[in-house]
Amino acid sequence: MKSKQFILAQRPQGMPDANTWQYQEAELPDLQDGQLLLQVEYLSMDPAMRGWMNDIKSYMPPVAIGEVMRAGGIGKVLESRDARFAEGDYVTGLTGVQNYAVVATDMVNKVDPSLAPLPRYLGTLGMPGMTAYFGLLETGQPKTGETVVVSGAAGAVGSVVGQIAKIKGCHTVGIAGGQDKCDYLINELGFDAAIDYKNTDINQGLKETCPKGVDVYFDNVGGEILDAVLTRINMHARIVICGAISQYNNAGPVQGPSNYLSLLVNRARMEGIVVMDNAANYASAAAEMAGWVAEGKLQAKEHVVAGLETFPDTFKMLFTGENFGKLVIQITDH
Amino acid sequence: MKSKQFILAQRPQGMPDANTWQYQEAELPDLQDGQLLLQVEYLSMDPAMRGWMNDIKSYMPPVAIGEVMRAGGIGKVLESRDARFAEGDYVTGLTGVQNYAVVATDMVNKVDPSLAPLPRYLGTLGMPGMTAYFGLLETGQPKTGETVVVSGAAGAVGSVVGQIAKIKGCHTVGIAGGQDKCDYLINELGFDAAIDYKNTDINQGLKETCPKGVDVYFDNVGGEILDAVLTRINMHARIVICGAISQYNNAGPVQGPSNYLSLLVNRARMEGIVVMDNAANYASAAAEMAGWVAEGKLQAKEHVVAGLETFPDTFKMLFTGENFGKLVIQITDH
Repeated sequence: MKSKQFILAQRPQGMPDANTWQYQEAELPDLQDGQLLLQVEYLSMDPAMRGWMNDIKSYMPPVAIGEVMRAGGIGKVLESRDARFAEGDYVTGLTGVQNYAVVATDMVNKVDPSLAPLPRYLGTLGMPGMTAYFGLLETGQPKTGETVVVSGAAGAVGSVVGQIAKIKGCHTVGIAGGQDKCDYLINELGFDAAIDYKNTDINQGLKETCPKGVDVYFDNVGGEILDAVLTRINMHARIVICGAISQYNNAGPVQGPSNYLSLLVNRARMEGIVVMDNAANYASAAAEMAGWVAEGKLQAKEHVVAGLETFPDTFKMLFTGENFGKLVIQITDH
Repeated sequence: MKSKQFILAQRPQGMPDANTWQYQEAELPDLQDGQLLLQVEYLSMDPAMRGWMNDIKSYMPPVAIGEVMRAGGIGKVLESRDARFAEGDYVTGLTGVQNYAVVATDMVNKVDPSLAPLPRYLGTLGMPGMTAYFGLLETGQPKTGETVVVSGAAGAVGSVVGQIAKIKGCHTVGIAGGQDKCDYLINELGFDAAIDYKNTDINQGLKETCPKGVDVYFDNVGGEILDAVLTRINMHARIVICGAISQYNNAGPVQGPSNYLSLLVNRARMEGIVVMDNAANYASAAAEMAGWVAEGKLQAKEHVVAGLETFPDTFKMLFTGENFGKLVIQITDH
């Protein structure tokens, strides 16, 4: 079976460009016991993918030069060498940026296409949703009445963070780029307030929307927004470091938070999270999230771009903020 | 009663200079009930004093312009308006930079000059010791066999941090400036290793002295050393932010830790501490520390400079690293 795929051709300095990936059609390896052949239907575009391209020690090894670009995806089983999976089942896992994939069954999870649209399993009901759930509840530990601020609030993780914060009775403020996204946060997701960082002063926005200060900050962006929030935190605040999308394409060093001594003044905590650490508890989290979805408390939005060939351009939308909702590529060409 | 004192004349930009403080002799206010008149014998020189001079929100209000410069001190009671204190008692508290002081009795603690030299109550047996004790044990949570790194290791706080880490069975590494201080850490305080940041490469030093990575980092200095340690932390490491002496005299912004995303990769935590939060537990901590002193497990060194008039110059020694041991001024002129 031939697969259409993007391989990592060279490591980018800064933003990926035309030379970063190379398109090819290559023969997939023969299927072994414990593996599945998938027809990939949707690919997940995640900021973390940018980190996987750097040749540095991280929570996963970097994608090797010449290797299929790593990405989460959702696919239909065409052939199974594991009795627990049947032809026609749908699974999520790291399929890579390609239209067919061979994956190990212990690295995928079955999903039910009758319960939710498939792309949702890459967003609210997938890793971004789990990241939001565990990052906010276990590391952020929000209490009723506290103020929770989240950046990248219209994104796949941030939108879930804010909605869970509301479910937990918090004053919830989202930071997002553009009036459309801010309106969406307030009118459709039930955030109490939103700050349009592209068109308003972030410090002033925080002052107005967080009159009682910030107790939990869930950070997806880093940079100046992290620094601004640090000036508004309360005593014993919790800052959850989930990502730093503003910094991932820096050619030079990351901009460290120059206001980090606010942690000292306020006896506050800044802690990093990686969703895989909670794998043992995904099932119970998913059940609780599904309940919220059924009750209408947890809304979701996907931004679907059609065509595997769009990958290099679609991926970059994450960093310019062009996507509105969980960004996925629908693979139409099989 | 006239007191010789230094008042804050203007807020420094960067390092304090000749115009920062003004010397004066001023009449003390009349003694009220619940107050003591003290003859101040020793003043504590602490990096935190630099922060108290900035007009920003912090854990204490800033010293006002025209106010006696805030400082911890130890003094002999000359006159008491509280039955719990007698003439001749010794107390510690915020006396200010002056040779006589009027203080409220609920803001001071009695000390016993027969049990330890007086300056020790400003260092190992005082706030720096308490800071080390609670910061390391409660926030750092070192476990036997883990690697604990402390910066400013020959200072009043750092030297106690390292010794308690050893008592707890940790591999203990101190970062200090100069071979003399490093020798002292290893030969007199029992550190396992020391890194002379003034004469060796800090990254190389960390690599050599922390072969198993860093589990707890107790940071007194910030800046490049914090960034270097961030590249060597282990999974679930704890970074205790006690201070950032390298940054206190910056005229520009503080240098934020550009490697802070190591917190994410390693699911690690960075948390600020302020010793006053543990006031309710000082007594039990002091008892345990006294036991370690009696067993010879907790050594201390004070650097005594004579003369109130030396204050502006003596204070600056903290930032150049000229002091070796807890820095105190002995007030000889009454």
